[in-house]
Amino acid sequence: MGSLLEPILKKGKLMYLKPAVVTALLACSALSAGAQVPAEKAVKYRQSAFTLMGSHMSRLSAALKGDAPSDKAALAFSGDVIELMSRTAFEGFVPGGDQTGSKAQPEVWKEMPKFKELTKAMQAEAVKLRAATQSGDSAEIKAAFGATAKACKACHDPYLAK
Amino acid sequence: MGSLLEPILKKGKLMYLKPAVVTALLACSALSAGAQVPAEKAVKYRQSAFTLMGSHMSRLSAALKGDAPSDKAALAFSGDVIELMSRTAFEGFVPGGDQTGSKAQPEVWKEMPKFKELTKAMQAEAVKLRAATQSGDSAEIKAAFGATAKACKACHDPYLAK
Repeated sequence: MGSLLEPILKKGKLMYLKPAVVTALLACSALSAGAQVPAEKAVKYRQSAFTLMGSHMSRLSAALKGDAPSDKAALAFSGDVIELMSRTAFEGFVPGGDQTGSKAQPEVWKEMPKFKELTKAMQAEAVKLRAATQSGDSAEIKAAFGATAKACKACHDPYLAK
Repeated sequence: MGSLLEPILKKGKLMYLKPAVVTALLACSALSAGAQVPAEKAVKYRQSAFTLMGSHMSRLSAALKGDAPSDKAALAFSGDVIELMSRTAFEGFVPGGDQTGSKAQPEVWKEMPKFKELTKAMQAEAVKLRAATQSGDSAEIKAAFGATAKACKACHDPYLAK
């Protein structure tokens, strides 16, 4: 939901706006979510963020198994990358645009509200994971890591081509 | 400082090691900065970080020109991405590994101390740029943006293939 529309909806005043105004606001709203990522660069943009998120999820997984450095700075760095990338990646699902090389299913755009709900759930888990990595407590990190991985999978299952 | 070296330094035993051992340990330490990125994934990893850094530098540039949203949250988000990616990207310059698709010149690895110095200078500017975006002051952002772009170029000129 774009920043222009939210305050209006929050105030429950949408019904008082003329249809043309609502349409214009919705158009702005839809654009504003991804307006900053040019459509022709959207695939590369989001794949870059997912590459880094995935890499640091793997790194945390290895650290939890004792196969990678698990000093506090290394863990917190991964937490920072995962959390920021969880927000960055989803800027890349702009309307239309080139889909070359993308594994995102067309259902993403057809079911945008559901997709965004799953996205927000994942981002919320990533915030908790970041906090856990800052604490350095391995049990806390393990729990938050599991919840984040589950939230990733909840979206990959319906929306990512196998 | 790499994790291999740290415990030794922490225990204050470095003076008891032979010079050759110290040299070897320091080499490991230098390597460990990128040891978390597998060599076969290094190109994709660093290019992902550079893609996002470049995208947000363009976004800030557009915002400074009035061609993109310049609300404080949008600016600060770009500052966050640029600063974190400035640290993430340079994990990807691991020794050896596949260079397929990379535009990084072989001189990067031949002149690693100089390359790292330029990297650190750029990262320092990115820290200032992040702080400027958080302030929301456009003159401050403009100055920090210029200094960061200059620091990017200082490394691109000798080390990035045209």
